[in-house]
Amino acid sequence: MSDPIRRLAAEALGTAMLVATVVGSGIMAQRLTNDIALALLANTAATGAILVVLIGLLGPVSGAHFNPAVTLVMALRRQLSATDAGFYVIAQIGGALIGTLLAHLMFDLPLVSAYADPRNGASQWLSEVMATFGLLLTILLSLKHAADQIALRVGLYITAAYWFTASTSYANPAVTIGRALTSSFAGIGPADVPGFIVAQIVGALLALGVATWLLRTPSEHRA
Amino acid sequence: MSDPIRRLAAEALGTAMLVATVVGSGIMAQRLTNDIALALLANTAATGAILVVLIGLLGPVSGAHFNPAVTLVMALRRQLSATDAGFYVIAQIGGALIGTLLAHLMFDLPLVSAYADPRNGASQWLSEVMATFGLLLTILLSLKHAADQIALRVGLYITAAYWFTASTSYANPAVTIGRALTSSFAGIGPADVPGFIVAQIVGALLALGVATWLLRTPSEHRA
Amino acid sequence: MSDPIRRLAAEALGTAMLVATVVGSGIMAQRLTNDIALALLANTAATGAILVVLIGLLGPVSGAHFNPAVTLVMALRRQLSATDAGFYVIAQIGGALIGTLLAHLMFDLPLVSAYADPRNGASQWLSEVMATFGLLLTILLSLKHAADQIALRVGLYITAAYWFTASTSYANPAVTIGRALTSSFAGIGPADVPGFIVAQIVGALLALGVATWLLRTPSEHRA
Amino acid sequence: MSDPIRRLAAEALGTAMLVATVVGSGIMAQRLTNDIALALLANTAATGAILVVLIGLLGPVSGAHFNPAVTLVMALRRQLSATDAGFYVIAQIGGALIGTLLAHLMFDLPLVSAYADPRNGASQWLSEVMATFGLLLTILLSLKHAADQIALRVGLYITAAYWFTASTSYANPAVTIGRALTSSFAGIGPADVPGFIVAQIVGALLALGVATWLLRTPSEHRA
Repeated sequence: MSDPIRRLAAEALGTAMLVATVVGSGIMAQRLTNDIALALLANTAATGAILVVLIGLLGPVSGAHFNPAVTLVMALRRQLSATDAGFYVIAQIGGALIGTLLAHLMFDLPLVSAYADPRNGASQWLSEVMATFGLLLTILLSLKHAADQIALRVGLYITAAYWFTASTSYANPAVTIGRALTSSFAGIGPADVPGFIVAQIVGALLALGVATWLLRTPSEHRA
Repeated sequence: MSDPIRRLAAEALGTAMLVATVVGSGIMAQRLTNDIALALLANTAATGAILVVLIGLLGPVSGAHFNPAVTLVMALRRQLSATDAGFYVIAQIGGALIGTLLAHLMFDLPLVSAYADPRNGASQWLSEVMATFGLLLTILLSLKHAADQIALRVGLYITAAYWFTASTSYANPAVTIGRALTSSFAGIGPADVPGFIVAQIVGALLALGVATWLLRTPSEHRA
Repeated sequence: MSDPIRRLAAEALGTAMLVATVVGSGIMAQRLTNDIALALLANTAATGAILVVLIGLLGPVSGAHFNPAVTLVMALRRQLSATDAGFYVIAQIGGALIGTLLAHLMFDLPLVSAYADPRNGASQWLSEVMATFGLLLTILLSLKHAADQIALRVGLYITAAYWFTASTSYANPAVTIGRALTSSFAGIGPADVPGFIVAQIVGALLALGVATWLLRTPSEHRA
Repeated sequence: MSDPIRRLAAEALGTAMLVATVVGSGIMAQRLTNDIALALLANTAATGAILVVLIGLLGPVSGAHFNPAVTLVMALRRQLSATDAGFYVIAQIGGALIGTLLAHLMFDLPLVSAYADPRNGASQWLSEVMATFGLLLTILLSLKHAADQIALRVGLYITAAYWFTASTSYANPAVTIGRALTSSFAGIGPADVPGFIVAQIVGALLALGVATWLLRTPSEHRA
């Protein structure tokens, strides 16, 4: 791992590139087609691909969380101090905001705009619980048996989760905040952000419990 | 391998997430487009991706069968006792049913609904024989030469089989039962389930025979 | 490598599954959409995916040629006797014919039908020269530096070649013959087969020359 | 690494095949559909796939730059002499021009034609800065920690960048020049080429600075 400044820079840079991809590819797709499934498919391909790249590139520098839900779980597992976790989350949110601004600049749009359609209600929140549960399960089980597969598996997991959840799987509080600055395809209304974040934290903690139980060996169990 | 409870939990969890992905991504796609090929393409991408993830994650815990046809073949190869195989199948079917319910909950649909179009007849059954034959061949030949490639190859095999079979390749009795609870894109009428399951078992046994013969070395042959 | 019977069985089985995928996924796509680009995209995904699987599975048994152009080049490089090569080609053509019949059976179509649109002329033939040149270059350069990557690279190469050639890259005399039995999306008129095969052989020989020159080390050069 | 002639031949061959794929798949897609998002998705799949193949195949021969922006950065890092870099760039531009001609020949089009729509302005140039920044960051960080992943990561990065930039991510001066010879989907007007190349060089240099800083270890920092 690198020194603190570089680690925080890596978290901000990675989250910015992730959000620029999520928002930018949504804008591009929306401009080119009227078929929403096709737009989501392009959005999925871009997001899944960039996740594999960014986690692979920046994992050796900062651990490549890019996600406060991941940082929270790592802090609870004592792989990160509470202070470090706090700075990570600030860097991630800052990066996410920059990512949306960059996407808007590249597509010649106003820097900030507000998404209009609602993204709330029990089925949306359950979707975010499930999406983040699956994401953290992917990370925690891979850390145990195949840490070098995390980048690929997270990219593939999100590829699936964009489609199997009703919310298209935000699964990341920082990315959710970044997406609250855009009215485009990948946006979310600011008032709907807190509900998503609560659901994401619930899903992450659920995954921590399930993964810990699933990976406990008999001897640990007896101890 | 883990203790029995964790292995069964892993089979149920994995099959639930697999079926939630198959059914959920079908619902999402159907909502977003009228082009059925595009809906199937999204369904394919989600299913192929989640298979790579789930088999990779839960393989070290339970072997990641998620499929009674796979469990049957493993039991015939004496890598699993008949009792263990029975519990595996119960866990897989339970997981599959939960998977459909979860997808319906996430998309705010009635918990259970009945698929109306027929899925039966010789060409459908031949499709399921071929689909399951190819799936088991993929697993059995990989176990011999490249066990660490099973997750990737199964994901890619199903990506192809969704398109080269007339049935879109269910290839899994538990998943077939789970899909009998939904009237959405990925559903199957309950009356058509037995025919599919028989065909899947035939395909699995055929693959066991072909793989055993193909991998027999000359010295084994003489023995 | 296995004994001769198993090697020939592997070549026939692999080529049959490859052609069943190419033809079957074309029929499925054609049934589900009117957008030909979408049909070709599904056809591409299925073909690329099954190639990675089949080459990985059967490479340890027979070398996984599934293609007389590949077998020809391997024989010229003396990695296969002329007699073995002849039997390989017969097994591949037999497998290819069975593959089309299987696809037609699965989709409840007449066993044999004739493709009507022309596939000939200089630009089609140049496309097949280029397609087969690239395929053999992929195989020959990988054999030198990264033999364990051949399955993945061939799958990805064909994914690209379906789109960058005007012929959608048949690149395989046995597959071309198998595709001459179908009037569906992936078919070719029987009269157009010889032109394709000649072009494929030219492309393969060109690749053998270029790869041999490119990989010759200075010391070999002086020798 | 091979001798100079083979290295330059590899750079020309690889860049020609890359540009033939970019331009050829654009022509094919444009012929088959009216949905521009679908055309770009096919163009993306073909380009991403061929990049993984070509970088894997020719990396051991020439380093597989295929891109003057990459060669510039490698020369600044003293991994290539200025003279060698000059010849590399000439080979890359020659290859790119041949690539477009080959694509036009395969699709039976006039050898050269001029793209009409404008590709310029601040948002296009910012897109090219970002696209090339990300590409070089991918290469430079991978060289440090996972050189064997460069081919895969570059293919996935470009898959994302085709969608998250407003310019569809040319990110390569030689490819930009090759694409200036075609009026088809993937073309660019000759007058817009210099703006793109300047932006690409800015992005590449920015990545060199960021990567150098990010990978500097504390001890190097003090030195």
